[in-house]
Amino acid sequence: MIIDISWPISPTMTSYKNNKPTTFTQLKDFATDGVRDVGIHLNTHTGTHIDAPAHFLVTGKTIDQVPLESLIGSAVVLDLTNVQEAVTDHDLQMHTFAAGDIVLLKTKNSALSANAPFDFKFISLAASGAILLAARGVKAVGIDYLGIERNQPNHETHTLLLEQQIPIIEGLRLGQAAPGRYQFYCLPLAIIGLEAAPARAILIKA
Amino acid sequence: MIIDISWPISPTMTSYKNNKPTTFTQLKDFATDGVRDVGIHLNTHTGTHIDAPAHFLVTGKTIDQVPLESLIGSAVVLDLTNVQEAVTDHDLQMHTFAAGDIVLLKTKNSALSANAPFDFKFISLAASGAILLAARGVKAVGIDYLGIERNQPNHETHTLLLEQQIPIIEGLRLGQAAPGRYQFYCLPLAIIGLEAAPARAILIKA
Repeated sequence: MIIDISWPISPTMTSYKNNKPTTFTQLKDFATDGVRDVGIHLNTHTGTHIDAPAHFLVTGKTIDQVPLESLIGSAVVLDLTNVQEAVTDHDLQMHTFAAGDIVLLKTKNSALSANAPFDFKFISLAASGAILLAARGVKAVGIDYLGIERNQPNHETHTLLLEQQIPIIEGLRLGQAAPGRYQFYCLPLAIIGLEAAPARAILIKA
Repeated sequence: MIIDISWPISPTMTSYKNNKPTTFTQLKDFATDGVRDVGIHLNTHTGTHIDAPAHFLVTGKTIDQVPLESLIGSAVVLDLTNVQEAVTDHDLQMHTFAAGDIVLLKTKNSALSANAPFDFKFISLAASGAILLAARGVKAVGIDYLGIERNQPNHETHTLLLEQQIPIIEGLRLGQAAPGRYQFYCLPLAIIGLEAAPARAILIKA
């Protein structure tokens, strides 16, 4: 069974800090052209997307240099819905996962509407949590909001993961994903040379 | 082993009839912001993308109504590199595939550069080929160019497939895909309410 854990993309969708609007422009329509065709404007960080190392590291890899193998494989959805502020090393120590796993953080964020104004108090991943995940050798980390850290002056959560070549999957929607183990497939658009890309992500129950 | 069969997306990429430009706009850069962030303008039919029934049928399903199950599964790459104009029923009868297969048409198009000007003489799928594929009950049809038909006044190739709820995957790059059977994963962006969406597509060799 396929569980779609992607953020629905539309002009009404939540955007990061309400400042990355998505617009659709009808270019052809049936009445005049007999066919539909639409222009899309979005952002590399719209909806479900991958942050590549180049997002926060001057010489970091761009999205086309991130191996797709790091975005496909065995994943665990962790129940962190009790966390009130940021997921810490202490919160993660209570859960079971292993080197090579893709770790998906399911928090209270997944209860928010996909079209609500941006929630500046979203649940984030603390630097201590990023240190633990990197030390355990996870393959990728996903979170259920449009950012993974909140107002860190030095962006430690991002840089600690990206320096270890661990891609960050932001903007997942985990409301329909019960905690547990799945096969995970996340395919970003094949964008060349940029620091991130919008993606579609699904879980398949083993 | 993962084989990426997606069209690289960049401002220099080939666009349909040279009139769907892709642009990247740098919004934040390290020098001033300490982070990279980019706006993207593209089209629903840019690069590798799915045509949903709503592309050519007034009341057809939009891309969010196409089940992902029809874009994931057992696929056959057919060697049609000898075809000079359009893939016909006769060309397809020489190949083996079954109901429920995803059929990917590998033609001379795959030898074209991904950044060349649009080739108005690309190899297409003839209406007779679409009739045969629909009658055989294939799950989806893919082709290695940015269109699947060329200047048909009534767009029969599109409509014959889309009326049977067979999504069309355009803009594949099959140069690295030897003919044969694979697991295929094609995930379009989770765009709501439109007639098509850009996608990433991969093959996994069984």
